[in-house]
Amino acid sequence: MEKRVYNLSAGPAILPEEVLLEAQKEFFSYKGSGMSVMEMSHRGKIYDQIHQEAEADLRSLLNIGDNYSVLFLQGGATLQFSMVPMNILKGKADYILTGAWAKKAAKEAKKIGSVNIAGSTESENFNRLPRQDELKLDSEASYVHFTSNNTIFGTQYRTEPEVGNIPLVCDTSSDMLHKKFDVNKYALIYAGAQKNMGPSGCTLVIVRKDMLERSDDSLHTYLNYKTHAESNSLYNTPPTFSIYIMGLVYKWLLKNGGLDWIYKVNSEKAGMLYDFIDGSDGFYKSAVAVKEDRSLMNVTFSTPNEDLDKKFIAESAVKGFSGLKGHRSVGGLRASIYNAFPQKGVEDLVEFMKDFKAKN
Amino acid sequence: MEKRVYNLSAGPAILPEEVLLEAQKEFFSYKGSGMSVMEMSHRGKIYDQIHQEAEADLRSLLNIGDNYSVLFLQGGATLQFSMVPMNILKGKADYILTGAWAKKAAKEAKKIGSVNIAGSTESENFNRLPRQDELKLDSEASYVHFTSNNTIFGTQYRTEPEVGNIPLVCDTSSDMLHKKFDVNKYALIYAGAQKNMGPSGCTLVIVRKDMLERSDDSLHTYLNYKTHAESNSLYNTPPTFSIYIMGLVYKWLLKNGGLDWIYKVNSEKAGMLYDFIDGSDGFYKSAVAVKEDRSLMNVTFSTPNEDLDKKFIAESAVKGFSGLKGHRSVGGLRASIYNAFPQKGVEDLVEFMKDFKAKN
Repeated sequence: MEKRVYNLSAGPAILPEEVLLEAQKEFFSYKGSGMSVMEMSHRGKIYDQIHQEAEADLRSLLNIGDNYSVLFLQGGATLQFSMVPMNILKGKADYILTGAWAKKAAKEAKKIGSVNIAGSTESENFNRLPRQDELKLDSEASYVHFTSNNTIFGTQYRTEPEVGNIPLVCDTSSDMLHKKFDVNKYALIYAGAQKNMGPSGCTLVIVRKDMLERSDDSLHTYLNYKTHAESNSLYNTPPTFSIYIMGLVYKWLLKNGGLDWIYKVNSEKAGMLYDFIDGSDGFYKSAVAVKEDRSLMNVTFSTPNEDLDKKFIAESAVKGFSGLKGHRSVGGLRASIYNAFPQKGVEDLVEFMKDFKAKN
Repeated sequence: MEKRVYNLSAGPAILPEEVLLEAQKEFFSYKGSGMSVMEMSHRGKIYDQIHQEAEADLRSLLNIGDNYSVLFLQGGATLQFSMVPMNILKGKADYILTGAWAKKAAKEAKKIGSVNIAGSTESENFNRLPRQDELKLDSEASYVHFTSNNTIFGTQYRTEPEVGNIPLVCDTSSDMLHKKFDVNKYALIYAGAQKNMGPSGCTLVIVRKDMLERSDDSLHTYLNYKTHAESNSLYNTPPTFSIYIMGLVYKWLLKNGGLDWIYKVNSEKAGMLYDFIDGSDGFYKSAVAVKEDRSLMNVTFSTPNEDLDKKFIAESAVKGFSGLKGHRSVGGLRASIYNAFPQKGVEDLVEFMKDFKAKN
């Protein structure tokens, strides 16, 4: 088998080796069909089974009820920043700002209606999440929007903000499927595929069916959730290969024990890394001010100074760790340890960090 | 090597075997990088080279000047039906109707401005293209929109309609890169990848830079061409794997002789099939009324009756021909023989058709 690096990229990100090997094996001819999945009609029987199974397996993983539609769309979370307000913002909406992505989402919403910033830690450079007691919700808001995990600052919600009866909308792009959660608490969930689910180019939307009534017929066809809900995401050609890989990832999760299993793995991986950082006598510093807000997906930290950060990135790359540079907007270091990142990789990273500390 | 079928699907469609084999080989670890292309950061050096080369090779194939931006977007031609008028329709636009796709494009444009149907053969069930002398163009139109090839009815423009100084916009989804054409005649060209270029999930847009001045800042970020032109299609995560495969297809074309080569191949393939149909003593009938309007990509035809059409589909499938059923909206038969469909496949199909005729 070919050598692999430890891929700590924030996204597109590492995928399970089993999934890659299976997809590679059937890349040229899918299960004896004589065609690659990429070459198949999206209206044919073989692809249809792939499509249906991906949806069914996702429903099974998250225990999604029939009162929700599952959509496989395109355009990334970026297009959802617009589609969400286009479809369901009637008047005003609450946005909780926890970083760059939430701000981008709020910016698009302002093109549709009035946006109330229900909470923000921008003045603290988003180094923690707004506390529940800091939120100023508008009971008449069309919905409350929040971002479950922030890849840049390394913060993550442990539980949803409490919003009473206001419909809850979440961008889960960077921690979708990292643990079990109750879909019934949400009116709408969206996520780009390229962290925990598959290749970029597909965006998952899980929307409670009553929300679809808000979608106005005057909306452009592709931008209307109803278009896709009514045609099972086959109104136009969907990103078939991305959906196929997502489906393989869902099966990989189910086979290994589902979301409880992966949450245990993720907790252990992140725990190992944070414990080491906290016990490093201040050599490594977590970028997140409040421990409970630390992300299990993106571990942001730094060494005593920028020069050492640079040295860390260069030396780790030589040792086979790829993608440890922090986001260009904040600097520092970041280890993205999504679902598919192996436990052994975290152990080896900690060893490297120990060694780097000793030498510097 | 595994057995392949003759894939005559209208799209997603057959890809060159060489491309599939190369992508399969480096699927698990791209050129020794230790990562699949699917797993790479879109801001990293390795993917950046893939991205830049795909654009450069496309520019080389079509001889695209610096006065055009090349964009790799998402959402298919369907989203372009909306993005085109959102960005460049100011007041009114001309649409030429040659089938279902052109009608869908016009429908979205009506949400933005006034649409003049400059020509239509709908009353003849789109079995030919509107002639130049039938066009009623509005000299003050923002643009004229047409569809270069119609997959459902099997019609295709040999040369662009003459539109004088009105900017010309074309949906080339189903015949892009099937031959050389003069990009300078166009203000904007768009095409879903999944016929002649790669997997579904990526939409190519070639737009003359002066047209970008029409894009209003009030547009939603993803829906504004300027967003993508200014960031080299990297504003948000692009469909990296689709772009990678498109790049391999561009290299395959360049290596074999470019668009003059593929046009010769396409002309020979389609010629063989149409000649046989025309010489079948009326057993097979072309669905297109005007010979010059026949598509080189989608050869639509039928047998003497519907029962025989069904028999033809069933028996051809057994013989290893996949996807010969006509579009569900028109019935009959359709052989989609895109760039990657092998000449030998057409020869074998003609043999099958001879045999089928003899037996029925």
